[in-house]
Amino acid sequence: MKALVYHGPNHRAWEEKPQPTLLKPTDALVRISKTTICGTDLHIMKGDLPKVVDGRILGHEGVGVVLEAGSAVTNFKAGDRVIISCVTSCGKCPECKRGMPSHCADGGWILGYLIDGTQAEVVRIPHADGSLYPIPADVTDEEPLVMVSDILPTGFECGVLNGQIKPGDTVAIVGAGPIGLSALLSAQFYSPAVIIMVDMDENRLEVAKTFGATHTVTTNAAAKIMKITDGKGVDVAIEAVGVAATFQICQDIVAAGGHIANIGVHGHSVELHLESLWDRNVTITTRLVDTVTIPMLLKTLKSGKVKPAQLITHRFPLSEIMKAYDVFGNAAKERALKVILTN
Amino acid sequence: MKALVYHGPNHRAWEEKPQPTLLKPTDALVRISKTTICGTDLHIMKGDLPKVVDGRILGHEGVGVVLEAGSAVTNFKAGDRVIISCVTSCGKCPECKRGMPSHCADGGWILGYLIDGTQAEVVRIPHADGSLYPIPADVTDEEPLVMVSDILPTGFECGVLNGQIKPGDTVAIVGAGPIGLSALLSAQFYSPAVIIMVDMDENRLEVAKTFGATHTVTTNAAAKIMKITDGKGVDVAIEAVGVAATFQICQDIVAAGGHIANIGVHGHSVELHLESLWDRNVTITTRLVDTVTIPMLLKTLKSGKVKPAQLITHRFPLSEIMKAYDVFGNAAKERALKVILTN
Amino acid sequence: MKALVYHGPNHRAWEEKPQPTLLKPTDALVRISKTTICGTDLHIMKGDLPKVVDGRILGHEGVGVVLEAGSAVTNFKAGDRVIISCVTSCGKCPECKRGMPSHCADGGWILGYLIDGTQAEVVRIPHADGSLYPIPADVTDEEPLVMVSDILPTGFECGVLNGQIKPGDTVAIVGAGPIGLSALLSAQFYSPAVIIMVDMDENRLEVAKTFGATHTVTTNAAAKIMKITDGKGVDVAIEAVGVAATFQICQDIVAAGGHIANIGVHGHSVELHLESLWDRNVTITTRLVDTVTIPMLLKTLKSGKVKPAQLITHRFPLSEIMKAYDVFGNAAKERALKVILTN
Amino acid sequence: MKALVYHGPNHRAWEEKPQPTLLKPTDALVRISKTTICGTDLHIMKGDLPKVVDGRILGHEGVGVVLEAGSAVTNFKAGDRVIISCVTSCGKCPECKRGMPSHCADGGWILGYLIDGTQAEVVRIPHADGSLYPIPADVTDEEPLVMVSDILPTGFECGVLNGQIKPGDTVAIVGAGPIGLSALLSAQFYSPAVIIMVDMDENRLEVAKTFGATHTVTTNAAAKIMKITDGKGVDVAIEAVGVAATFQICQDIVAAGGHIANIGVHGHSVELHLESLWDRNVTITTRLVDTVTIPMLLKTLKSGKVKPAQLITHRFPLSEIMKAYDVFGNAAKERALKVILTN
Repeated sequence: MKALVYHGPNHRAWEEKPQPTLLKPTDALVRISKTTICGTDLHIMKGDLPKVVDGRILGHEGVGVVLEAGSAVTNFKAGDRVIISCVTSCGKCPECKRGMPSHCADGGWILGYLIDGTQAEVVRIPHADGSLYPIPADVTDEEPLVMVSDILPTGFECGVLNGQIKPGDTVAIVGAGPIGLSALLSAQFYSPAVIIMVDMDENRLEVAKTFGATHTVTTNAAAKIMKITDGKGVDVAIEAVGVAATFQICQDIVAAGGHIANIGVHGHSVELHLESLWDRNVTITTRLVDTVTIPMLLKTLKSGKVKPAQLITHRFPLSEIMKAYDVFGNAAKERALKVILTN
Repeated sequence: MKALVYHGPNHRAWEEKPQPTLLKPTDALVRISKTTICGTDLHIMKGDLPKVVDGRILGHEGVGVVLEAGSAVTNFKAGDRVIISCVTSCGKCPECKRGMPSHCADGGWILGYLIDGTQAEVVRIPHADGSLYPIPADVTDEEPLVMVSDILPTGFECGVLNGQIKPGDTVAIVGAGPIGLSALLSAQFYSPAVIIMVDMDENRLEVAKTFGATHTVTTNAAAKIMKITDGKGVDVAIEAVGVAATFQICQDIVAAGGHIANIGVHGHSVELHLESLWDRNVTITTRLVDTVTIPMLLKTLKSGKVKPAQLITHRFPLSEIMKAYDVFGNAAKERALKVILTN
Repeated sequence: MKALVYHGPNHRAWEEKPQPTLLKPTDALVRISKTTICGTDLHIMKGDLPKVVDGRILGHEGVGVVLEAGSAVTNFKAGDRVIISCVTSCGKCPECKRGMPSHCADGGWILGYLIDGTQAEVVRIPHADGSLYPIPADVTDEEPLVMVSDILPTGFECGVLNGQIKPGDTVAIVGAGPIGLSALLSAQFYSPAVIIMVDMDENRLEVAKTFGATHTVTTNAAAKIMKITDGKGVDVAIEAVGVAATFQICQDIVAAGGHIANIGVHGHSVELHLESLWDRNVTITTRLVDTVTIPMLLKTLKSGKVKPAQLITHRFPLSEIMKAYDVFGNAAKERALKVILTN
Repeated sequence: MKALVYHGPNHRAWEEKPQPTLLKPTDALVRISKTTICGTDLHIMKGDLPKVVDGRILGHEGVGVVLEAGSAVTNFKAGDRVIISCVTSCGKCPECKRGMPSHCADGGWILGYLIDGTQAEVVRIPHADGSLYPIPADVTDEEPLVMVSDILPTGFECGVLNGQIKPGDTVAIVGAGPIGLSALLSAQFYSPAVIIMVDMDENRLEVAKTFGATHTVTTNAAAKIMKITDGKGVDVAIEAVGVAATFQICQDIVAAGGHIANIGVHGHSVELHLESLWDRNVTITTRLVDTVTIPMLLKTLKSGKVKPAQLITHRFPLSEIMKAYDVFGNAAKERALKVILTN
């Protein structure tokens, strides 16, 4: 089969690889129908994640059809249409049992990272019963479902749920890339009164407005947000970039009693201003997505409460994934959010 | 009347001051029976809190008897025995209504800071209905009640409640001073399995053992705690010092899915290791005590579930408060925790 | 002044009454701008609430302008536009401090019940600071704000919040009168996937559809709802009538792990089927509205997340309140939901 | 092998049965070390649970040693010492994933009910990875662990957790049998100030006192409890019997804002006094134990925070289980709580 393979920093290839086989009775093989590229894949390509070895097939998102299910798989059989969770969950370890499969003892985020991933014609999914979700028979459009593998639950769980957004709240989302925008979409489940999007890219802010942002801010974000909020700051600040400057904005704008929900993948430490925050009754959270909300998100998607297809800007055949990487890697210029690759 | 008065950094005096009078109909005057000295008072004496003006009477803890109640005070009348909360609560502003009087629009922590405090024979308490608590008639020992003004709710609210300690949890408390020890006492309301106290002062750790600590650690705290927890880290790390090094320990030992509850008053920023914590599903909280749990704490105290008198090591007449400050300011050598000053 | 006065079962009059005066320094006098009639007022007129004495001015909802504020009132002054909460809150008792002013030691629901109410030109509001809410200067349409006195927070607090509606949930609301419809409006703050309205009145169900109901049911409600939900039942069943038959429907349709949130005012006991519910992990709640969510509701209203004006079907001058009672008392025929009375 | 077999109402036998074998790769066979008898077993013997067929081996509690593990079992291997949960959990269905395995699509309570149980020398455990818990190597006394199969998590989850007991609370537990007493033991994890036990059996109330009850009540329970609580009622009322009269006591004594947590297995409906409770802001819960707290309970047990061995009053060899049933079935006279049967 063909797959997108990592060959060290800045080297990738769309090349022939042996089709995976079942290694354990809890595995399933899934023929990919649609997959996508994540910002994390770009990080891998830059060499930022040294655990990724030469020869690894990338990708941790996708929908497909079960090709073969191991003997211990009971929720799925060949022919079933499935959503692949970016997180592998054994369902048996203490972390899975407490609802935190991101730290599963035999899983977590491994797909397209420590094991071969979904940017291929076929992928092996370990612990299939815990790591795949059935596509309802009456949902025929599979493109939006690709957003349910990672990007939508990440914005929702790490940003919206951890931020504890309530009706009437004032929310700021720092970063209007796909992650920030998915937080923006899912934040609206809880009817905040004000959602301020912060980014340096005017195009993305325009998109954010069409997605439901009530305000957008570029430069001097903290000062402008304090003005918008009459000096009170925001109830919830969501960090969706992963650098010190954006985390700093969150600290500058969080109201007393408020929340900072970090989604961004940080490569360096940041300065935490406890000298001013120690008495501000704030809560700061971090989270690797658990994807435990996929069943809930499927219900909201099916009922039209969220339309993650809004995140899709480009479409390619899977065989043109090399080109898709170029487009996605040049997101600002290409005005790219999520790309859909169809097998 | 006599009072302990601040006259700039390192200058204090026990001197004659005019007895306070009612300024608003919501005020009450309270004749102090017993008061104490807080670590924050030492910070003030060092000049760390520049908002404290020359001439200010210090102190924000105490029990006493109502001398006179303003016309709008309905919960209290002259002769009532009361506990004074360190936090003034108007009960009417949005922050008070949401249960966060630490940020009351006309209160918060002002006593012995922005207005005259409790280290005096008489103190004026604004918003008396929200800032005083009645002493139950059958509670005759007033010494433990002084601990309810600040130290016990601070350890409980900022450390234990914000840390969300659950039965069976593994908890580390970094700092075994009065605040850390009050967190230790109130942590036991929730029956954690393991409580590890960290401090450099062996004497305080000995005290901690008698208070219920299951383990004590001095040097190389993080490494030792990881060993005690079989490499998993702690469910809850409580920071009870207020410097970068102790906050670092908390970051080093918190388990995936765990909590860091900051109590310490920090004078400087700290380094937050988001490069390792971003995917660890941790929650970090800060809080200025709200004292909203005083009614709950009174019930636990009355029923013997907590014995805050354990924190009391020294007693003086109020008139010897100058000497008491010397003892408390030399806590390690004097083996001092809380001192009781009786008027 | 003129007021709507209760003179025993089935006797009411629009008659001259002395204008109220301040009785306590915490009181305020409010000149009514707009008021309305509640289903509870009809219950009073039937004699169902024997504590209401002959001569009582009815009404517990309204907006107006402060005429005079007592000396201890600090949040309001003459000329301020205010929303009157149906619940009086002293802000000082244990119940108010724990966020449950419905059971305030010196308040709760007393307006138009135990003391004179809002269906008058002027009303005296005890504990004005806790019982009035300021109308934001930029909100000029006062009609929707009358809904914030009682009907909207009742549907929201007793139905939606107590029912713990989550995104993607399946919800049934039994009763499509003003209370059930206000639950329907505010349920959508949390983006449930399915909202089934149950009523015998086809007109009200038509209204419910325009308000966001996804399904409507009349006869054989339980069986139909089980079919709609593929035999699983609903996550949340909201009882908005107050009789045994509707509470029975809720028991019949609640899913394992689900919630029954009672809003209805019941005159009689009901049969609780613990023989079938004991192992179903259900939660049943009751609540007298606390109106603690008024600040939150004002934010959602101002931002357009909820449009309670949808509940208004009729308008009268206050002087025609006798006629308004006739219309509202004949709601099904008149297709009446809420009536607005303008002073 | 030998087993205790149900042969229709009032007929049981200790007789030879074929040793079970693995039926699915997720099964495990466990050689019973210790088991016990539950009140539910007595209900089965009376014929109250018609789904139990002639020939069924009873019993849903026990500890033992894994004899053989199916090929898909990964958490356990032959020789491992285990606690058997009374609830079978597949870990893969929506109910298991949401933490409610009591309603597992392929499990729930089936052991000794719909499939053969633990009152035998060997038992087959379906979905072993989700339904067994490892016994820590340093825990050598297995008797208390038998209490972790059902009785302790039932009191804790259905009574204490659902009742949301907080430090300082006033709690009443109606019924001082093994279930009520296990609620009493585990209630103390949360440091309530007052625990009132209600029962008609003075012996059991004496036991309750030694277990930590602060008050005991026999006749006229509601009136006496209202007196003890100064007319306020209790924060949490736990029903641990399962008849109308005891549920009535709970309704009579619950304070405004309080909780009624039902544990009892009810055979008939009860009268719910919504005419007086509708405005009392109460929460009523039901629950079949999920046993999801077994890991937490093991930590508390290991650290000495709870000592469930206190519930054990009698010990027999497993071969004398017929006699043990007689003793347990005559609990009041025999002063029996839990009996231990050793294989």
